[in-house]
Amino acid sequence: MTTLDPLSLSCPTPHAETERVLLGHGSGGQLMAELLRDVIIPTLGGGGVLEDAAVVDVGAAQVVFSTDSFVVTPRFFPGGDIGSLAVHGTINDIAMRGADPVALSVAYVLEEGLPITELRRITTSVATAAHAAGVPVVTGDTKVVERGGVDGIYLTTTGIGVRAPGVDPSAARCRPGDAVLLSGPIGGHGMAILSARSDLGFAADIVSDSQPLHRLVRTMLDAAGSAVHALRDPTRGGVASALNELADASGVSISLDEPALPVSRQVAAACEILGLDPLHVANEGCLIAMVAPDSADRVLAAMRRRPEGVTACAIGRVGDGPTGRVTVRTLIGSSRVLDMLVGEQLPRIC
Amino acid sequence: MTTLDPLSLSCPTPHAETERVLLGHGSGGQLMAELLRDVIIPTLGGGGVLEDAAVVDVGAAQVVFSTDSFVVTPRFFPGGDIGSLAVHGTINDIAMRGADPVALSVAYVLEEGLPITELRRITTSVATAAHAAGVPVVTGDTKVVERGGVDGIYLTTTGIGVRAPGVDPSAARCRPGDAVLLSGPIGGHGMAILSARSDLGFAADIVSDSQPLHRLVRTMLDAAGSAVHALRDPTRGGVASALNELADASGVSISLDEPALPVSRQVAAACEILGLDPLHVANEGCLIAMVAPDSADRVLAAMRRRPEGVTACAIGRVGDGPTGRVTVRTLIGSSRVLDMLVGEQLPRIC
Repeated sequence: MTTLDPLSLSCPTPHAETERVLLGHGSGGQLMAELLRDVIIPTLGGGGVLEDAAVVDVGAAQVVFSTDSFVVTPRFFPGGDIGSLAVHGTINDIAMRGADPVALSVAYVLEEGLPITELRRITTSVATAAHAAGVPVVTGDTKVVERGGVDGIYLTTTGIGVRAPGVDPSAARCRPGDAVLLSGPIGGHGMAILSARSDLGFAADIVSDSQPLHRLVRTMLDAAGSAVHALRDPTRGGVASALNELADASGVSISLDEPALPVSRQVAAACEILGLDPLHVANEGCLIAMVAPDSADRVLAAMRRRPEGVTACAIGRVGDGPTGRVTVRTLIGSSRVLDMLVGEQLPRIC
Repeated sequence: MTTLDPLSLSCPTPHAETERVLLGHGSGGQLMAELLRDVIIPTLGGGGVLEDAAVVDVGAAQVVFSTDSFVVTPRFFPGGDIGSLAVHGTINDIAMRGADPVALSVAYVLEEGLPITELRRITTSVATAAHAAGVPVVTGDTKVVERGGVDGIYLTTTGIGVRAPGVDPSAARCRPGDAVLLSGPIGGHGMAILSARSDLGFAADIVSDSQPLHRLVRTMLDAAGSAVHALRDPTRGGVASALNELADASGVSISLDEPALPVSRQVAAACEILGLDPLHVANEGCLIAMVAPDSADRVLAAMRRRPEGVTACAIGRVGDGPTGRVTVRTLIGSSRVLDMLVGEQLPRIC
């Protein structure tokens, strides 16, 4: 006979639970937004709008500055590895503020016992990705911690970029009427990581979309300049979390057209089997753009001329409220609210 | 009777041993220099001279860019914590290239289960140190890894600074005849960490020297401009490793005058008991400057007007060879060669 110890049924109160860092605090979703809003940003004295990168005035120039740590597991996955991902991720954050990336730094934390061949392989991947993107790695750091102090290797890449005058895509600049453009199919990165981790047979041919997007952004800005109101790469937390952040920061609503969403057959099938919404799955090689309506066709045409944007499409429209509300018009014509990812879907996705 | 199993006497060959990352690869000494020289820098396509920070041309401006990961244990120690150390360390690397730091980023890797109060305390320390230094934290990142994936919290700070034209302190610019100046007493940081770790009774009143040095550098450059040939903060690997790197990069020799070296009574006593050479112990709040001989007195006077440099002194002279040789003239008049730290003295010092 099985008896239940009544003590084992006690439920931790949400308040007590959030007194410690949870995996969900790194998800890119609701819990992370709360940690940033309640603990980190007010303590550091920052402003209210969360951007992918900061803008610093240096003389007459606008320098864009962004940093990201990478803890992805496994370190090697279909379509990339922790090294290429770290380069692409930081280049993309710089690009999302409309800047051309000019230099990267890379800081390693290595675990004692890591094979040198693996360090060499990852460093080669960093170098190859940086070279292909035309952005040199100019400085770095190396720390070693004892076995168990880190899981093999973590990388932190930081980038600086230079922004042309008159360009200012920002999470706070979405305007009612803007077209919502998406540069490529969604869900590839998250599902590739999941398949690499779990050896899911059905997901064998899904590869990460990890790629640099700065040249695509340059093409878009050349085509429409400041009519490109906002850019965001929907990484952790997926398209849903990115759109919720944009709607919040700009005080607008956003409506998506579900049939227009580009999801590959393999990603759609894997998501369906696992019960995941592709709108919550991480991406590392596509972007969302909010563009003034009379420039949208021009920007879309420019995007489709680049390999990163060849399947770019319009997926929705910015509305005038209620503030922060993101809705999806489904295939059958009904409408549902699209929330941020709340807890953790897949830890250590990037 | 004790018998020895002959197999237990087999010694790993140095070659096989270095096929994996060792703690010593993070020491700031010889092993780390080899890892950088043999694996990381050639793969990334970098140049030969190791500097604390890179210089990137942005329009007409020279932007100085530096990154450092911090994995210090314990996270709280006499004279600072991982947060203040991360701010000071990066500001100092920017300052060592003669630039005024203008902005910082901070990237967290957090362990699931870290108390939020501790995260708040460390973030407050970051904010307080940045505010006191007058350098804002403008962007950041937060990742969370599962229990055991990291030891509590690691921080990576990256800084950008702006350098005035005509100023170019560099590891490669030491010249024979230069005076070797030191801004303050050595060994404080390393011995403070050691005492915090080991609860050494005799070291109770040793505190880390962790502090920002950019205002001291500004004063020195205002006093002597380009006559300040090289600046280096002797962190991991201590004064010995820093001087060996400078002598190597500039193709010069350096001779130190041991009686002139400022070491506090407590640090000297602790080092003597533990068999450590204060010249190999890490510092986080002093700098070495190589200054043209006819400007040395002016620079020294300027340093002593700042609180960070009140005990600044001349400790030696740059010679014309043999290249890379650092020697110390001891108290009794003999001379010894001062090597870089070879293996690991104290892991996770910063």
